[in-house]
Amino acid sequence: MPRLQDKRVLITQSDDYMGPSIARLFNEEGAMVKSIPGVVPFDGEFADYASRCGEIDVVIANLAFDPCNSPLEDIKNENWMALFDTMVHPLMCLIRHFAPQMARRGHGKIVAVTSAAPLKGIPGSTAYCAARGAQNAFVRAAGLEYAAVNVQINAIAQNYVSNPVYFPPALVESERFQKHLARNVPAGRVATEKEQAELALFLASENSNFIVGQIMPFAGGWVTTT
Amino acid sequence: MPRLQDKRVLITQSDDYMGPSIARLFNEEGAMVKSIPGVVPFDGEFADYASRCGEIDVVIANLAFDPCNSPLEDIKNENWMALFDTMVHPLMCLIRHFAPQMARRGHGKIVAVTSAAPLKGIPGSTAYCAARGAQNAFVRAAGLEYAAVNVQINAIAQNYVSNPVYFPPALVESERFQKHLARNVPAGRVATEKEQAELALFLASENSNFIVGQIMPFAGGWVTTT
Amino acid sequence: MPRLQDKRVLITQSDDYMGPSIARLFNEEGAMVKSIPGVVPFDGEFADYASRCGEIDVVIANLAFDPCNSPLEDIKNENWMALFDTMVHPLMCLIRHFAPQMARRGHGKIVAVTSAAPLKGIPGSTAYCAARGAQNAFVRAAGLEYAAVNVQINAIAQNYVSNPVYFPPALVESERFQKHLARNVPAGRVATEKEQAELALFLASENSNFIVGQIMPFAGGWVTTT
Amino acid sequence: MPRLQDKRVLITQSDDYMGPSIARLFNEEGAMVKSIPGVVPFDGEFADYASRCGEIDVVIANLAFDPCNSPLEDIKNENWMALFDTMVHPLMCLIRHFAPQMARRGHGKIVAVTSAAPLKGIPGSTAYCAARGAQNAFVRAAGLEYAAVNVQINAIAQNYVSNPVYFPPALVESERFQKHLARNVPAGRVATEKEQAELALFLASENSNFIVGQIMPFAGGWVTTT
Repeated sequence: MPRLQDKRVLITQSDDYMGPSIARLFNEEGAMVKSIPGVVPFDGEFADYASRCGEIDVVIANLAFDPCNSPLEDIKNENWMALFDTMVHPLMCLIRHFAPQMARRGHGKIVAVTSAAPLKGIPGSTAYCAARGAQNAFVRAAGLEYAAVNVQINAIAQNYVSNPVYFPPALVESERFQKHLARNVPAGRVATEKEQAELALFLASENSNFIVGQIMPFAGGWVTTT
Repeated sequence: MPRLQDKRVLITQSDDYMGPSIARLFNEEGAMVKSIPGVVPFDGEFADYASRCGEIDVVIANLAFDPCNSPLEDIKNENWMALFDTMVHPLMCLIRHFAPQMARRGHGKIVAVTSAAPLKGIPGSTAYCAARGAQNAFVRAAGLEYAAVNVQINAIAQNYVSNPVYFPPALVESERFQKHLARNVPAGRVATEKEQAELALFLASENSNFIVGQIMPFAGGWVTTT
Repeated sequence: MPRLQDKRVLITQSDDYMGPSIARLFNEEGAMVKSIPGVVPFDGEFADYASRCGEIDVVIANLAFDPCNSPLEDIKNENWMALFDTMVHPLMCLIRHFAPQMARRGHGKIVAVTSAAPLKGIPGSTAYCAARGAQNAFVRAAGLEYAAVNVQINAIAQNYVSNPVYFPPALVESERFQKHLARNVPAGRVATEKEQAELALFLASENSNFIVGQIMPFAGGWVTTT
Repeated sequence: MPRLQDKRVLITQSDDYMGPSIARLFNEEGAMVKSIPGVVPFDGEFADYASRCGEIDVVIANLAFDPCNSPLEDIKNENWMALFDTMVHPLMCLIRHFAPQMARRGHGKIVAVTSAAPLKGIPGSTAYCAARGAQNAFVRAAGLEYAAVNVQINAIAQNYVSNPVYFPPALVESERFQKHLARNVPAGRVATEKEQAELALFLASENSNFIVGQIMPFAGGWVTTT
């Protein structure tokens, strides 16, 4: 039996990051997937965005942005702000809007696709770590707040997953990157998009109802603590 | 399609703890389950134990013992040793025996059913925390050592899961325990055995091949960090 | 011998949070303390702020704001933004400005006074957890980036410390709060401001030069993991 | 003023690991240091050991053993057991004996010198990780149990600290190790014994009375989470 039969699933920023692969798997599993491409707005524009979504059983909060890597000294204000504007504030808006709606219906799932970067700390990606760290911290607290009303909110804190934003195939196949993998990632490879989607599926299904506020490292052993 | 079709699964100490419920679900999923009841031996006797198992694709290292709760001051040497003898040393023997065998075949899974207790620290259960902490630390390091050869070793660090050893129904239903749950466990309930088995299934399936050396909290939000 | 003899120390938002008590102890220890009251600006105004500071050996990034507690559903955009505007963005500006300057001189210390809240997750304080989580993640990554050039950047992730912003004496002394303490804080009390300042002193002194990118829980056992 | 004036300090296994350097600093700080060389016994012999110690204000549980590095597959039972016999069981005996005595006097400190290895997981050191992980887990739980009676129990989870057992100068100075440091340790160097002793001193002093059950990473950024 399909594992998401008739579930109404929203995938945000659906053309980017893990959006396409999650949509594919979730469709196969019987979900009714609403894919909305583009950055999720916050502030005034969010109400419009939300009204296009209707009732949703599962939100995949897939939010990504160029990591804006640079030495800390050279962080540009506009990049710093853009990371928070595209990844942090919209995540709050999504959860603030959908979690109460799910609570009223008696069940619901929110899976944020975030990053393992803040769990370890990456020199040269300090702005990105800060924004992803805000996401992870928000998911943890939100997950605990909604646990008792049968709404499960969790995050996939990933790294080294094949995807067009951070790990496009051309990069992954380079000799330099393969050496980097061998040295830094115990699994010695990047994850396929399908593998990541399977974790999202597990967290979106009823089988994981006891898992709440969890930041799940998904990084081939690159990081195992939260 | 069954998710463990034709997989040869060993469940240790199969009459206790999560053994029966994991066996049930894994059988439904097409696995050939070999259930061996009783404490897993270590030292000289382990070779005999292992020879009864043959080739195994998935080991569920289900090891449990009375938590021997007491004030730290009153820890008895024999209880302390028994916790290590039943939970820690056998886990090493199991992984030392089965992981290399799996590596030679090119794939394999070991899922240790441990505890979230050491992740938080429980006064009055310090001996139990120490032994479970040894298990978790061993799984983390072992998982990283075997990651590159496609053998995935992980732990379910659980608490508040219905099971005859630690959370029998009579305890769970008591008013006192329900108050304790409301105050300490964000999910407000214990997990069913089935829910736990579903996490074990996820970690035993090919879908989780990128997850290694991970200590997965499974405790309804009672603890979310590792 | 005074432990901060002739060290030029900047304490930000010096009238609030841990500012006054850290200033007191650091003065006793021979530091030349520059206390600047008020919220630290970011964006255009920060350059002026920084130019008032001159060369600094130790920055105490003491940034605090009303926690804006509310159910997640009722988070107000202006509160959410205010938390990031007062605690997160200024922290980036401070570190971006002072860490390179310290690196050029060959030594320096930045101690951020943050919170243990995001390490555990507090329902009803999700916005605060997000902002403090961003701080902690930034400190971790920044600390690793500057470790090799002898600039140590760490955070004190505190909770249950006596201070006028979050734990004023009147609250602490109430019977209700004392019960809360007995139940939730293993130490059974709040820390004195002096105790907190001693940890800040340790992290500001040469004795802690090997500690970098560390988020130090300081919460009487309320949380022990990071 | 000396920071440990008249404190009766026990340093175990005093000729090894961090024993000599901690003794040196603690003596300078006015402590009455009782240094007992040799492995700490457990079981029947511990009573004798303890009776030689008398009343103690601060225990430095300095326990070390050859890490017995080997592939997991080649772990020898006698090495595995030796690690637990020398590092884990004696730590329990020490805390079980001294913490209640301290509680009766109304104050006391136990600082365990453990390792950061189990916080990250080291392939090829899985036995060592398991034993050190047991120590860390025991310290966390014990620290919470004794927090309310003004006895502080914490651990220094160190790595890359100069010491004759694990990082003798000849190893550290080798070109190969220096490359390893540059690649793996953000601080780019090993800590001096004196730096480690300063952290032990901080945890042994009254200034850290609010820190309990804490596993303090001390590894130059090699690991920052617990």
